[in-house]
Amino acid sequence: MFPKPSGVITLLTDFGLHDAYVAIMKGVILGIAPHARLIDVTHEVAPQGVAEAAYLLQTGYKYFPRGTIHLVVVDPGVGSERRGLAIATSDYYFVGPDNGLFAPLVEAARSNDEPVAIVELGEPRYWLPKVSHTFHGRDIFAPVAAHLIAGAPFNELGQPLATIEPSTVQPPRRDAQGLLHGELLHVDRFGNCLTNIAASTLHANGLGERLYVDIAGERLPGLYQTYSEAPVGMPVVLLSSSGRLELAIRNGNAAQALGVIAGDRVKVSRRE
Amino acid sequence: MFPKPSGVITLLTDFGLHDAYVAIMKGVILGIAPHARLIDVTHEVAPQGVAEAAYLLQTGYKYFPRGTIHLVVVDPGVGSERRGLAIATSDYYFVGPDNGLFAPLVEAARSNDEPVAIVELGEPRYWLPKVSHTFHGRDIFAPVAAHLIAGAPFNELGQPLATIEPSTVQPPRRDAQGLLHGELLHVDRFGNCLTNIAASTLHANGLGERLYVDIAGERLPGLYQTYSEAPVGMPVVLLSSSGRLELAIRNGNAAQALGVIAGDRVKVSRRE
Amino acid sequence: MFPKPSGVITLLTDFGLHDAYVAIMKGVILGIAPHARLIDVTHEVAPQGVAEAAYLLQTGYKYFPRGTIHLVVVDPGVGSERRGLAIATSDYYFVGPDNGLFAPLVEAARSNDEPVAIVELGEPRYWLPKVSHTFHGRDIFAPVAAHLIAGAPFNELGQPLATIEPSTVQPPRRDAQGLLHGELLHVDRFGNCLTNIAASTLHANGLGERLYVDIAGERLPGLYQTYSEAPVGMPVVLLSSSGRLELAIRNGNAAQALGVIAGDRVKVSRRE
Repeated sequence: MFPKPSGVITLLTDFGLHDAYVAIMKGVILGIAPHARLIDVTHEVAPQGVAEAAYLLQTGYKYFPRGTIHLVVVDPGVGSERRGLAIATSDYYFVGPDNGLFAPLVEAARSNDEPVAIVELGEPRYWLPKVSHTFHGRDIFAPVAAHLIAGAPFNELGQPLATIEPSTVQPPRRDAQGLLHGELLHVDRFGNCLTNIAASTLHANGLGERLYVDIAGERLPGLYQTYSEAPVGMPVVLLSSSGRLELAIRNGNAAQALGVIAGDRVKVSRRE
Repeated sequence: MFPKPSGVITLLTDFGLHDAYVAIMKGVILGIAPHARLIDVTHEVAPQGVAEAAYLLQTGYKYFPRGTIHLVVVDPGVGSERRGLAIATSDYYFVGPDNGLFAPLVEAARSNDEPVAIVELGEPRYWLPKVSHTFHGRDIFAPVAAHLIAGAPFNELGQPLATIEPSTVQPPRRDAQGLLHGELLHVDRFGNCLTNIAASTLHANGLGERLYVDIAGERLPGLYQTYSEAPVGMPVVLLSSSGRLELAIRNGNAAQALGVIAGDRVKVSRRE
Repeated sequence: MFPKPSGVITLLTDFGLHDAYVAIMKGVILGIAPHARLIDVTHEVAPQGVAEAAYLLQTGYKYFPRGTIHLVVVDPGVGSERRGLAIATSDYYFVGPDNGLFAPLVEAARSNDEPVAIVELGEPRYWLPKVSHTFHGRDIFAPVAAHLIAGAPFNELGQPLATIEPSTVQPPRRDAQGLLHGELLHVDRFGNCLTNIAASTLHANGLGERLYVDIAGERLPGLYQTYSEAPVGMPVVLLSSSGRLELAIRNGNAAQALGVIAGDRVKVSRRE
């Protein structure tokens, strides 16, 4: 059932690009799997930003070839009792700490009746010989990802787990008046604001092409099809390239104009 | 006439490094061309900075092996009627939106009597199955670049085009007094200021080793041969490593000292 | 005696990621050694930050496969008389300017009786045909690294050198009262403060698990084993993942809390 490793490992961390930490993980991987292909997702997740990393992982992982290993190290609990995980779905592998990061994609796979296998990392022969208390990305997670490419059987990485830590993000909620409540998960470089409300959630709640989003005292109309269709200078609502409700200003910065940040609440209503 | 793809794709965008957008493009490429070699030029072009991207592309593309594909996605018009392009010169391929980005290198090739082939991207079989209105980098441009490596014939990507959108940057201009007028295209990380005036333009206008550059009320002497030859703390003029007129301060930040930014005007005169 | 090149080249510069400079070096390498594997360490070293680059190089280089070539271009003296170097140890190659960058690792290798070979780069056939005064990373250092992978014999890169420029960083010093004096070398993205004091130096000076670090008028206790063991909100001392004395705050920013920067002095004493 396990997908054949594609040879690609993606890296998603909060390590930034000013230090040697990411390069050290790559050096460790190349020492074990010399032909691994290494792709950076981002290393600019806010320090200890577990919810943001979970969002970025979800938007990106499916665009990679089957058998890609997604290595995610946003790990505020490093050195504590938190577990290390390897997860296999029918198409991908995931390696990283058990802190809610992986809960959304495990839930999504299970609700689609896709097979999901999870182990708690527990076999030191797949780690570096010496494990520090502060850098499991280097000592445990990177070596495990590399050993998967080099042929280590998934089931030998550790003992099976049935449940993992839940997500730290709440799903959207519909109130008695039929309004849909959600939140901003991420502001991208352009100031576009991505929410936790998927197109399918809009439809399931009877919200179609004509809607309003209320945020920070403003009421934004939607859905627009493209940035270029929107009036210049006016914040509007559209569906993002990953199928989520998004707030944007054509050739402008919506987050700055609205004064909002990740975590702020949104409310969606029908536009008659 | 078309160069054999080298297997290398460079990526130049305004997507920044805080999001998953660049990684998603890479995942799409690796799904089509698993052995593609991916090199980032920069993703820190100012949002919608078409002129800056054109400059960075021009300074860098010739250092790559023959047959390299240069993928450039700075695309404020995404979702509008603007065309998508693939361009082949005798040595390189270029893929991206038709917004002036590629005009300088097409003009340069034609003025050297080099062959240039251009097609308007129009064959959905070389795109992702579903094309969004907001992210053609993922849905059209990355797949087209990958298919070129995977063996797609250039001429099948779309219909030939004779003309493309012109550059958004003016060429240097000589006035009646013999002064040469140009502008700053880019300020690099060190504060060095790169202009749109090439060494060949200086020579063609009778300006040699002894000249002044006037900018922001200051008069800077040149040409110095190296940073280390210049007096400490004094802004001077030299030729950049890519053969353009450059303003710099030895071990200092010329843009900050002069208070100038990209787009500011410069004037070059003879120093007697 | 020379290690077989692994095919991996790491790049460590102060060029930043806003320009095309790093990509240009990579293009040059791929033109000479098409199968080279290129790993970025960081390009965010402070401009002309020789001491910081030396620190980052030391923390990272040993995690790469034997035969890796470490290319380091932090080069305030470019265009002056400063020499270019290639260095071979029993496991790695290093290429870059002779300005103190490489002194700590050469000293460390020699004090361990490991063989070290050094040449002054002097053979233009291993460089680009035209060498600028301002960008030896592109014109000399990148081509030399690529030629090493492509099979150039180390000894033919130039004439042997016995001595190189010394480090710009002082080693830790013990005073008459038995206190150990050191300095901060680097503040990482999380605000963790890395010092020039290694675990071995503590032991050699009779300092064990119970110690204080004085910095900026504060007295910090140590050694803690992990971040999660430390009380929340209190700056503490631990050993970093690279075995150096480190100042940190659990889930916080120690450098900001203490108001310290690289170069600041620390003093270590016994905690009774």
